[in-house]
Amino acid sequence: MVDVQVRTNKKVVQKCYLSGPAKESDFEVVVSDTVQLALPTGSTAVIVKNLYISIDPWNFSMKKDDSTLPLSVITGYGVAKVVVSGHKDFEEGDLVLGITGWEEYSLISDPNSLIKINYPDLPLSYYTGILGMPGMTAYIGFYEICAPKKGEFVFVSAASGAVGQLVGQFAKLTGCYVVGSASSDEKVNILKEKFGFDDAFNYKKEQDLNAALKRCFPEGIDIYFENVGGAMLDAVLLNMRLSGRIAACGMISQYNLEKHEGVHNLLNIVTRKLRMEGFFVSDHFSKYRKFEEMVVPHIKSGEITYVEDIAEGLESAPTAFVGLFKGKNVGKQLVVIARE
Amino acid sequence: MVDVQVRTNKKVVQKCYLSGPAKESDFEVVVSDTVQLALPTGSTAVIVKNLYISIDPWNFSMKKDDSTLPLSVITGYGVAKVVVSGHKDFEEGDLVLGITGWEEYSLISDPNSLIKINYPDLPLSYYTGILGMPGMTAYIGFYEICAPKKGEFVFVSAASGAVGQLVGQFAKLTGCYVVGSASSDEKVNILKEKFGFDDAFNYKKEQDLNAALKRCFPEGIDIYFENVGGAMLDAVLLNMRLSGRIAACGMISQYNLEKHEGVHNLLNIVTRKLRMEGFFVSDHFSKYRKFEEMVVPHIKSGEITYVEDIAEGLESAPTAFVGLFKGKNVGKQLVVIARE
Repeated sequence: MVDVQVRTNKKVVQKCYLSGPAKESDFEVVVSDTVQLALPTGSTAVIVKNLYISIDPWNFSMKKDDSTLPLSVITGYGVAKVVVSGHKDFEEGDLVLGITGWEEYSLISDPNSLIKINYPDLPLSYYTGILGMPGMTAYIGFYEICAPKKGEFVFVSAASGAVGQLVGQFAKLTGCYVVGSASSDEKVNILKEKFGFDDAFNYKKEQDLNAALKRCFPEGIDIYFENVGGAMLDAVLLNMRLSGRIAACGMISQYNLEKHEGVHNLLNIVTRKLRMEGFFVSDHFSKYRKFEEMVVPHIKSGEITYVEDIAEGLESAPTAFVGLFKGKNVGKQLVVIARE
Repeated sequence: MVDVQVRTNKKVVQKCYLSGPAKESDFEVVVSDTVQLALPTGSTAVIVKNLYISIDPWNFSMKKDDSTLPLSVITGYGVAKVVVSGHKDFEEGDLVLGITGWEEYSLISDPNSLIKINYPDLPLSYYTGILGMPGMTAYIGFYEICAPKKGEFVFVSAASGAVGQLVGQFAKLTGCYVVGSASSDEKVNILKEKFGFDDAFNYKKEQDLNAALKRCFPEGIDIYFENVGGAMLDAVLLNMRLSGRIAACGMISQYNLEKHEGVHNLLNIVTRKLRMEGFFVSDHFSKYRKFEEMVVPHIKSGEITYVEDIAEGLESAPTAFVGLFKGKNVGKQLVVIARE
């Protein structure tokens, strides 16, 4: 055991169980005791240095009924560099994507869950977004769950977010008409100018979501990519066409409510023979390489673009997380811990 | 034109547009002027004598926003006998199933929509139920929409109704565990004693539908065959297992409400990756013969049974229809106009 490096390990922990909307004071940034960058003999784990972490709303699982203990490090997707490997498939210096911690160094007990990064020439941060789980989520949700056809009418809520911006661009590639909703005029502009949405609206400025959708979709909606839930879903149900499909990706408007909003228009699922379907992107990891081969050429050609909202430093992670629920981020929210 | 028969034609018409729950006074039984049982030369229509009419809740389309004029005869599925045919595929005396009117005689302009009855040795009334659209609805909804597997947990609401009783029996044939809900103790007994449901409950006697479902399904529900909507759907969503499927066949609790009840637990569609899907049985007519060949042997062997609630005479149709929404019928509600 020559040359064992010893480091401190800064991390973000959860101070208490969440109740109601997450607040920055629910988190704490702590510096642990020193950690050794070494593995016991025979271990098949790897130790990684975290570079970028993805800030995702599904951290809503951190609620009272969750079995995760407070003061444990928060976990989530990230991009990292292998610094010590006990696993045959990984060696020092490899760049990987996978579930890691909101901390400087992480021990990955099961490296089989890691995906090696094939295109380090692209921005590495893309592997938290367009080339990471949000990208796969858009790909599976749109292509597999919604089975889009050319000429169909597509609506995306939270359309400038990590997933929504890609769904819109996939819809355009497919020859669909696509409209997005977002929470600010700035985002609405980005949807139309940067991502090529045919139309977009700021839902905060609409008195009547049903009227907004009727204005944007006089012929109705074939596909709704659902990221928000609640009142928007209720309005969408009034505007779906026969045989419409709803990919239930997320319902960010509902995560922090003690009692979820009532949705009144579900009878349309019967009368318009709609399909509404949830999915776990983790069930589809085996399709990652296929997805990557589809999307990378479009990134390189500039046909698909991606907007990121990059916060600097682990210390900024709590604010970035809390901001997600207020619609503060413009594009994919991530945190850079180290650039290499 | 020798021997043209002339008849009066009793019919049930709608007196006004419905607002709120249907009342018997919204309907009127009238006797029309005489009709000739004859077709113009060259016509490809048929004239049928109606025998049995199916009373179905989807007559909820008779609302204000419907373009159907009041005082027109009510239409719906029925069993009839051809009395005059201008169509090459039909001849006098043929027994058929299809969309007809709530009247003694009907002119069918497009006889291609009629299905010839293959098994006149079975009770003809079955062609309004187990061998008619309710049967097809149960078959398509359960087998195609829900894709059941042996050992799965199935819940059926309005389980003693025209469709529900069959879904339960199909579930047993598939090797599933099946529980039904109904609106009276009498119906609950029928579910368990006659249709072989593993368990059943009277929802009107339950304080807490979520608790009732947890009691019946300690391991959760894989398949929900949805006939009622509203509070029952909300409770079911709390009890669905991962990858569960909901066939959205009907939501009878909601049809007559001015404002539909709110459903609060849709986030489970995301977090448990559920699929909820509506369907039109009319899209699946091409599978009718396949369905018939599957179900007839089970009827003949007694493995599948069917309970009907038969009202006598056209005059009883309004009461039968209104009763559907109050859960008055025990089994498939139909009206006999003539026995042959």
